[in-house]
Amino acid sequence: MAEIYRASTTAPVNIAVIKYWGKRDPKLNLPTNSSLSVTLSQSDLRTHTTASCSPSYPSSDSLLLNGSPQDVSGARTQACFRELRSLRKQLEDADSSLPKLSTFPLKIVSENNFPTAAGLASSAAGFAALVRAIANLYELPSSPTELSRIARQGSGSACRSLFGGYVRWEQGSTVDGSDSVAFQVAPAEHWPGMRAVILVVSAAKKGVSSTTGMQTTVATSSLFTARANETVPRRMKEMQDAIKNKDFETFGKTTMMDSNSFHATCLDTYPPIFYLNDVSRAAIKVVEQINKRAGKIIAAYTFDAGPNAVVYYEEQNEKEVAGLFKAMLGENEGWKGVRGDGVQANGESLEEVNSEVGVAVGLLKEGVSRVILTGVGEGPIRTEESLIDEKGEPTL
Amino acid sequence: MAEIYRASTTAPVNIAVIKYWGKRDPKLNLPTNSSLSVTLSQSDLRTHTTASCSPSYPSSDSLLLNGSPQDVSGARTQACFRELRSLRKQLEDADSSLPKLSTFPLKIVSENNFPTAAGLASSAAGFAALVRAIANLYELPSSPTELSRIARQGSGSACRSLFGGYVRWEQGSTVDGSDSVAFQVAPAEHWPGMRAVILVVSAAKKGVSSTTGMQTTVATSSLFTARANETVPRRMKEMQDAIKNKDFETFGKTTMMDSNSFHATCLDTYPPIFYLNDVSRAAIKVVEQINKRAGKIIAAYTFDAGPNAVVYYEEQNEKEVAGLFKAMLGENEGWKGVRGDGVQANGESLEEVNSEVGVAVGLLKEGVSRVILTGVGEGPIRTEESLIDEKGEPTL
Repeated sequence: MAEIYRASTTAPVNIAVIKYWGKRDPKLNLPTNSSLSVTLSQSDLRTHTTASCSPSYPSSDSLLLNGSPQDVSGARTQACFRELRSLRKQLEDADSSLPKLSTFPLKIVSENNFPTAAGLASSAAGFAALVRAIANLYELPSSPTELSRIARQGSGSACRSLFGGYVRWEQGSTVDGSDSVAFQVAPAEHWPGMRAVILVVSAAKKGVSSTTGMQTTVATSSLFTARANETVPRRMKEMQDAIKNKDFETFGKTTMMDSNSFHATCLDTYPPIFYLNDVSRAAIKVVEQINKRAGKIIAAYTFDAGPNAVVYYEEQNEKEVAGLFKAMLGENEGWKGVRGDGVQANGESLEEVNSEVGVAVGLLKEGVSRVILTGVGEGPIRTEESLIDEKGEPTL
Repeated sequence: MAEIYRASTTAPVNIAVIKYWGKRDPKLNLPTNSSLSVTLSQSDLRTHTTASCSPSYPSSDSLLLNGSPQDVSGARTQACFRELRSLRKQLEDADSSLPKLSTFPLKIVSENNFPTAAGLASSAAGFAALVRAIANLYELPSSPTELSRIARQGSGSACRSLFGGYVRWEQGSTVDGSDSVAFQVAPAEHWPGMRAVILVVSAAKKGVSSTTGMQTTVATSSLFTARANETVPRRMKEMQDAIKNKDFETFGKTTMMDSNSFHATCLDTYPPIFYLNDVSRAAIKVVEQINKRAGKIIAAYTFDAGPNAVVYYEEQNEKEVAGLFKAMLGENEGWKGVRGDGVQANGESLEEVNSEVGVAVGLLKEGVSRVILTGVGEGPIRTEESLIDEKGEPTL
């Protein structure tokens, strides 16, 4: 029997604090502005992927995600396979003793430890894991930044999930996208106290997909150019300085303003795109109230292309932020487990918040279906835990 | 007994299709961009005001609105009184036979035929009626444009309620605001088929006042400058052309885009301002569905600083627009009376719309507390119906 080559990795989700919205080249996923994200801990949210190849495999490449076969014929997945095979081929051409992995069919098996449908940036973790796993399989010497160029072609924001900590994606200016890549601004341990509570909101209906939405914004919003050309470049600088200085007030204010700016350009799209609903707005009101009580910014909301709120805060303010949400949404299973058990439900503050923004509290209680407590985390981690056995079969 | 001088007028509400948002001079109500509105019919929405003066009146000016005494010491009301007295004094100085009305205390009585609290631009109609009534009392030869300069100081958008039909307010450029005045773009009879259905949405809580809100936007929104300096000037021209050509598609599309642009800058404000709620968004969805069914734009939503939807349409599409809302919200008292009786409830279309955007229909049924059917109408109308009797007492 022919040899089965295998390599596995896990990769994280990232949530942008300066948002990616708009492509200057939809095929290559080249963005109209740079963006910046926090990589979330893989103990809470991660994709686990095993890449394998063998001359004995059926001739076409395959991908199994959470047990379901996925279509790999799309241009995005194909671009990743092609680029990675091309890098492997360079190695093989330079050293004829290497097995010709680039010529073997690929079999990929992938699993998320969170529900794919919840709108939690699963494609970012998914493509980062796919690219990282194949790069491991092929023993590529490429740096994470070099791999980010490839992962970007799978899903724009995936390029940021190749690093842990605080990550920026430079928009770049070349036509081929060679300089549209990700860099680490700071590792997770630079500012390890960063925490996030994710409020998963049950939406009545899925909104416009981000791929379609962002290009409609580029085509129709009269305010979009100002965001891409003026607002974001300024905020990228402010945000990097805030991270370097561990200045949560600036980090938080810029995070909230950028989320609002992004959703403003969605609303300015024709026809308008709405991702925030009344529950999202309730989360904003509660965060504003938390900050008002604290007399400074200790919590910062941000929303991707959906109604879920991600609220960043620092560990030392856990009681005033996560503790308040725990008191508010106490019966949610997100409050169980290692992270949840440690959070002290803040009943005293809740009473006060209830009297100030009781309507918002009621909307959150009704509309939040799931809570995820997490923090800043590492980039992809190589693992020996394989989702494909020695015979080339999925382990599940 | 000293003579009691009296004069009365009614004045209309106007709903902007290019919005006023932002002041370059908050004291003089000088805007950061021009705006354009449709004057609504006074048979549905109007303020009725009687201005009177007499040497026998108590020495301080007074204003009674819907039976409640109002504070007239505010800078805005004072500015209107002062400017109007000054014009009267010029007449008195030029012709000594004239009674010295400018020296007498003013007594004003005012009534709206609609609930003040509903967020229906009552201050625009109110200040327009106040200024027009006093100008009548003083027998000023001033044109509506000249009076618009004064009404603007009371409430910015009031300057547009001094005309019927289609009205633009030029932002002007002088420091004293002398060129920040209103002009008629076209009279109501130029495009008399214009109709509006107003969906009054019961908001859980009143939002940020427009006076406070717009200045926070000017101070904090990074997208606001692009709207004021680029987007609005272009749309002012498009909108005037659309009105001249009775081109509803352009009128409607520009109306919707400008409303979205305005609310986008509100969302881009820090802290963000939300006037639209889930019911407002449901109205947008239903209008989009109406237009999709028609294969062209026959209905156009616009939202002021609150959740109420104003939907413009042309008379010939009454069944497809108002008729659909009637079928949807049938038990509302707005469907009774002269206008409402004439509207044919469009049950067939409702069935289809229900299957396409049923969630939105449900939200509207739940959230719309009142419906007002109206159309384009005339400017202020002088009336002999006085709210103050010969003895200087309110008639009610």
